[in-house]
Amino acid sequence: MPKRTVLDPQGKTIQQALSSLGYAQISDVRQGKFFVLNLEGWNRDEAQKQVERISKEVLANPVIEEYRFEIVD
Amino acid sequence: MPKRTVLDPQGKTIQQALSSLGYAQISDVRQGKFFVLNLEGWNRDEAQKQVERISKEVLANPVIEEYRFEIVD
Repeated sequence: MPKRTVLDPQGKTIQQALSSLGYAQISDVRQGKFFVLNLEGWNRDEAQKQVERISKEVLANPVIEEYRFEIVD
Repeated sequence: MPKRTVLDPQGKTIQQALSSLGYAQISDVRQGKFFVLNLEGWNRDEAQKQVERISKEVLANPVIEEYRFEIVD
């Protein structure tokens, strides 16, 4: 998702839309993406290392986005 | 995120891109969106009810997407 210091125009638009629908209690919206990856053939340590790399180099733009991931069985 | 029964062309494209980068261990990718909402002035029960409604009626398209949410303090 966008770093806190980065503007999120999509989130802002959603917040304004919700406000105009009467949801004044929503004071802020941030929008992000997530990915569910099916992994095969890596053990947990390899998966941890490779997914870290894929997150940083392929899926996220670390200049403007922050990311996190978890490996689940 | 897209329901299991619904095609996810973006996810498929990412899976193919990763495969061409040498990540053959990633057998499937599904992409989804998430939203972080700042809530003010609702108690937990109201928040639960209102966010369920916002999810279903505004943020997600329940015909093709599934959604879930959690309320955190």
